[in-house]
Amino acid sequence: MLDKEIASAILKSVDEGFDEQVAFTQDLVRLPSLRGEEHTAQDFMAAAMRKRGFDVDQWRIDVEAIKDLPGFAPVKISYENAFNVVGSYRPKAVSGRSLILNGHIDVVPTGSWDRWTRTPFDPHVEDGWMYGRGAGDMKAGLGLMLYAYDAILRAGYAPAAPIHFQSVVEEECTGNGALACLQRGYKADCALIPEPIEPILLRAQVGLIWFQVHVSGDPQHASGYQDAGTNAIEKAFGIWQQLKELEKDWNARKVEHPLYKDHPHPIRFNLGNVAGGEWTSSVPAACTIEVRVGVYPGWKLEDARAEIEACVRQAAMSDPYLSNNPPTVEYHGHMAEGYVLENAEEPEKVLADSHRAVFGKDLTEHVTSAATDARFFGLYQDTPGMVYGPVCEQPHGFDERVDLESVRQVTKTYALFIAEWCGLQSR
Amino acid sequence: MLDKEIASAILKSVDEGFDEQVAFTQDLVRLPSLRGEEHTAQDFMAAAMRKRGFDVDQWRIDVEAIKDLPGFAPVKISYENAFNVVGSYRPKAVSGRSLILNGHIDVVPTGSWDRWTRTPFDPHVEDGWMYGRGAGDMKAGLGLMLYAYDAILRAGYAPAAPIHFQSVVEEECTGNGALACLQRGYKADCALIPEPIEPILLRAQVGLIWFQVHVSGDPQHASGYQDAGTNAIEKAFGIWQQLKELEKDWNARKVEHPLYKDHPHPIRFNLGNVAGGEWTSSVPAACTIEVRVGVYPGWKLEDARAEIEACVRQAAMSDPYLSNNPPTVEYHGHMAEGYVLENAEEPEKVLADSHRAVFGKDLTEHVTSAATDARFFGLYQDTPGMVYGPVCEQPHGFDERVDLESVRQVTKTYALFIAEWCGLQSR
Repeated sequence: MLDKEIASAILKSVDEGFDEQVAFTQDLVRLPSLRGEEHTAQDFMAAAMRKRGFDVDQWRIDVEAIKDLPGFAPVKISYENAFNVVGSYRPKAVSGRSLILNGHIDVVPTGSWDRWTRTPFDPHVEDGWMYGRGAGDMKAGLGLMLYAYDAILRAGYAPAAPIHFQSVVEEECTGNGALACLQRGYKADCALIPEPIEPILLRAQVGLIWFQVHVSGDPQHASGYQDAGTNAIEKAFGIWQQLKELEKDWNARKVEHPLYKDHPHPIRFNLGNVAGGEWTSSVPAACTIEVRVGVYPGWKLEDARAEIEACVRQAAMSDPYLSNNPPTVEYHGHMAEGYVLENAEEPEKVLADSHRAVFGKDLTEHVTSAATDARFFGLYQDTPGMVYGPVCEQPHGFDERVDLESVRQVTKTYALFIAEWCGLQSR
Repeated sequence: MLDKEIASAILKSVDEGFDEQVAFTQDLVRLPSLRGEEHTAQDFMAAAMRKRGFDVDQWRIDVEAIKDLPGFAPVKISYENAFNVVGSYRPKAVSGRSLILNGHIDVVPTGSWDRWTRTPFDPHVEDGWMYGRGAGDMKAGLGLMLYAYDAILRAGYAPAAPIHFQSVVEEECTGNGALACLQRGYKADCALIPEPIEPILLRAQVGLIWFQVHVSGDPQHASGYQDAGTNAIEKAFGIWQQLKELEKDWNARKVEHPLYKDHPHPIRFNLGNVAGGEWTSSVPAACTIEVRVGVYPGWKLEDARAEIEACVRQAAMSDPYLSNNPPTVEYHGHMAEGYVLENAEEPEKVLADSHRAVFGKDLTEHVTSAATDARFFGLYQDTPGMVYGPVCEQPHGFDERVDLESVRQVTKTYALFIAEWCGLQSR
């Protein structure tokens, strides 16, 4: 357990740096790190790390280097501007346990700007919330990693073990950014991710599969009789209805999963995108839907894919046209296994102690129907991957916002965690 | 009635020019006159008219000049490359009745090229069919207008009245090309359009409305529970289901329309396009569907629009989210009244005579669930607008094709029609 006076000094130090931390987070939100456009935000992160004297490693994700590793997900975009940044703090003398602090720089699309109260990349603070795309998911997290470290230094100490500060791309779509950190060789005794899931320990997360269904229709002049042609859009929607039946089936199977059996709806199928048709007066010749599905921890992805493909095949077989012109399934992103945090008693205890010192109550835990990059550390590197972070509302929605008081408190938890996990030495 | 020997000479002359006519049509099909890209095909048509000594008028459609005229349809694209071409034949002495021959140069999108047996703009002839996008709809028609005229000249005669050969844009989406010919002042005693509806007289056509429904959803992270967020794509499809009920209702009302009461399905609603969603793992915030509907002749478009809008409103009211975030209806193309050919005994008789001379049987007629530019002449210029053309399969589909024997015969009918309607004089 950390000395009380030291802990108190560190907590006070977080408060002292918090205004600057908020301003830094706002600057980061201003950089629109949408997929394929993360590079300027990564330059900003690299500069912040360099300023702190870290050894900075900034590299473009190389598909060739990771494509055969477990956890790799298929990618259909260019990585020309997809850079990871890792800043490594390496103390002169090492006495404690090493740590990875990991966050993702990529943000999801904003949707129509006119449905935001203010523009999504103009972060403003109101009633204790910071608004903006990525404010919660997860630039507040990226900021607090650095400012937790700063607080320790400001209190007169330095961590006594290496810390790798990772700002990665591609969390929202493939996880290939985190995977590239593994491939690059970064390793530590524990990894901690401040995803905005609230200050609760994440015990389990689902896996994810993204897939497209490409549906062909028989185009005809739309002036034809009722049945002339086969409308690819309507057929695609019929396939989606069948996939929703599979969603029900998968959710019913939660009884087989002790961690998920009490979850109200562990497996969400989301029809996230549709594009179909060529001309208003032509019967659509093609339609593609994009779907996100969750997968229980422990499920083999190949089994899940087989069920998805069988469902699509079955839906097609009941249709005269589709049975002769079967839709195809293509995987265009997430291909993620689920993950349960296990064998992590040591770091869990340190997190629980740190949390209790800040919040005055015990750390609770939960299981989620979402996924995070924590799986990479846990599944492929035998490193506990823990997730614990601030409070966010409307992630992926309009007026996304993060609760700044929760950011302050979580920063304190992280600072105490670093101090206890890594140990302290004098500056 | 045309002198039999003269008729015979003209028919023979069509045969003599037919190889050249086929080659010309192929050249025209090679020019990919998709919407917004019609200009090079129009240059080609203008050159063909100039070569024949016509007075050529080639002008860009000016929205300002036509936007307040009856029959105008809303347009959402640039007309930068949208040129009409009219070539006018003006005999030295006029004794007969003047004529407009009208065809459209625009073709609809091809859909995926790999689903064509050969590429869509590489017209090839096989078993008497010419294949290619636009081969039937309606470049064979544009060709036969010119070659019917040529046949008369080759036989040693010339038409004794003015003929305006019109090659127009925008038939497939607005009709604004034909409307611009009216605005420009072109007028004749009769208009004839070789749309590929078979060698049958078109008695009636429906009107058309194109509209978009813009649906808003409530985006959320797709990891949320089953009901988190409101999926704009699914909601849009629900609205489409309601529109299909309206389609049934409108078709049931065919009993009120003597010309359509025996038609199996006069009113086709076509879901022609859909685009929705922003991110596979976000609940879609927006989705737009594009719909084509038919409208009975005699119906006021404002009444039809009111029914469409009421249907969308009604569908939205049954949904908690949509009732508070109502979808909007936008008109993005066709806004066409239906049309019945009436008071056209004179040109109908000439067409029937010409048809009988070629086919050896009586001209029949039909009513269609499609629309053509003929409405402009009939509704807004008090000019009979007649449609009669070759046989086409798969218009708007893959492997669109036109029956060349029907093209030859229809060319003969047109040549005889010109001879009788316009009269002949020596060259």
